[in-house]
Amino acid sequence: MVREAPEEEIVQIWVSERFADKNQTLLRRFPDRIPVEILSDSVFAHVSDTKTPQGVLCVLRQKSYDLAQIIQTEKPLLLLLDGLQDPGNLGTILRTGEAAGVTGMILSKDCVDIYNPKVIRSTMGSVYRMPFIYVEDLAKTAIWIKGKGIHIYAAHLQGKNAYDKEGYQNGTAFLIGNEGNGLRKEVAEQADVKIQIPMQGQVESLNAAAAATILMYEAMRQRREELEW
Amino acid sequence: MVREAPEEEIVQIWVSERFADKNQTLLRRFPDRIPVEILSDSVFAHVSDTKTPQGVLCVLRQKSYDLAQIIQTEKPLLLLLDGLQDPGNLGTILRTGEAAGVTGMILSKDCVDIYNPKVIRSTMGSVYRMPFIYVEDLAKTAIWIKGKGIHIYAAHLQGKNAYDKEGYQNGTAFLIGNEGNGLRKEVAEQADVKIQIPMQGQVESLNAAAAATILMYEAMRQRREELEW
Repeated sequence: MVREAPEEEIVQIWVSERFADKNQTLLRRFPDRIPVEILSDSVFAHVSDTKTPQGVLCVLRQKSYDLAQIIQTEKPLLLLLDGLQDPGNLGTILRTGEAAGVTGMILSKDCVDIYNPKVIRSTMGSVYRMPFIYVEDLAKTAIWIKGKGIHIYAAHLQGKNAYDKEGYQNGTAFLIGNEGNGLRKEVAEQADVKIQIPMQGQVESLNAAAAATILMYEAMRQRREELEW
Repeated sequence: MVREAPEEEIVQIWVSERFADKNQTLLRRFPDRIPVEILSDSVFAHVSDTKTPQGVLCVLRQKSYDLAQIIQTEKPLLLLLDGLQDPGNLGTILRTGEAAGVTGMILSKDCVDIYNPKVIRSTMGSVYRMPFIYVEDLAKTAIWIKGKGIHIYAAHLQGKNAYDKEGYQNGTAFLIGNEGNGLRKEVAEQADVKIQIPMQGQVESLNAAAAATILMYEAMRQRREELEW
């Protein structure tokens, strides 16, 4: 994660003695303005929040995006996350989202903190690159987004059309709900179309990250077809 | 999980006093041959492996399937998992797999235990319904499977074709590798076709469960088209 961190955002680096011994070249790569402090292995173990720390930590400036920035690309592909709670889910959604060409994520204020260490680790670096914003009122933001000509699709158990029967080549936003309770009513109501993901067997719902993955990659599949990629 | 457990496999049930008080109707639904033992809340808390137990536990007989059983459906859709380590990933793969119409999972012997409590919980009941088998030598099993006319596709960073340019309407098996190291060489070599999942941005690889989700739902999408579902 430190290796992938955008250099201009790094404030300070801490390493364990053992790490410093083995990684001289890596440490020399950082510009002089970034202080690198060496801690004894035992102090480092106390500082880190993981059981088996890798021996390197850094402090980064947090990112800040505004809504206008997030939707300013030509054909935005957005995710609107409503009360997502599981750090692993959010991390996977960021990672898979970057891979699928998602241009930004909009999170309701009660979603898990994107700077939660578990989220950060499971993004595998995508947290540095994916524009995101927490909003006070996701339903209101959805209305604003629709006003910008972006179509909103809600994955919903009562959805009418299968997700692959709609077209996502133009500005698109997918609504993804909380793991246990799904989308809040006032948020789901803002969707232009409620879509469903067909399920066989006795499965009642999909994991939030799995549902998001299916939708994001369907959008990418359609957009790739257009580009003959 | 207890509510969804196949009744014929339940050996015994334990409940906390608090749970028993509130769930008389549920407990009366179980046949007399299943002993239900009531524990004080504090004893129950010690017995359970979760921090905030729901107050009900059961012992189930483990399932046992053989390979012939697993591939006996008409057009099997299989997952071959090579050294998958993360319980959450395996659980999600079982849950999403049932939804996508996967007919069976074949796991290398070094995969995480399917009876790991974290796996079981994240399957949301699919563990009761998805046929699976652990095999000694996944490469050998792959050869045997090919002999039965099933095509094997490996998700691979060096794959030639995009995953959605192949057809999965007939007997299909997807190879999914370990989270850190991918597929073992001797396993990857058994694939009829190496496919890749296109990725944008700076993402180096997808989470194993995300990759499996994309492939399983692409197979289901194609199979649904054939059935005009």
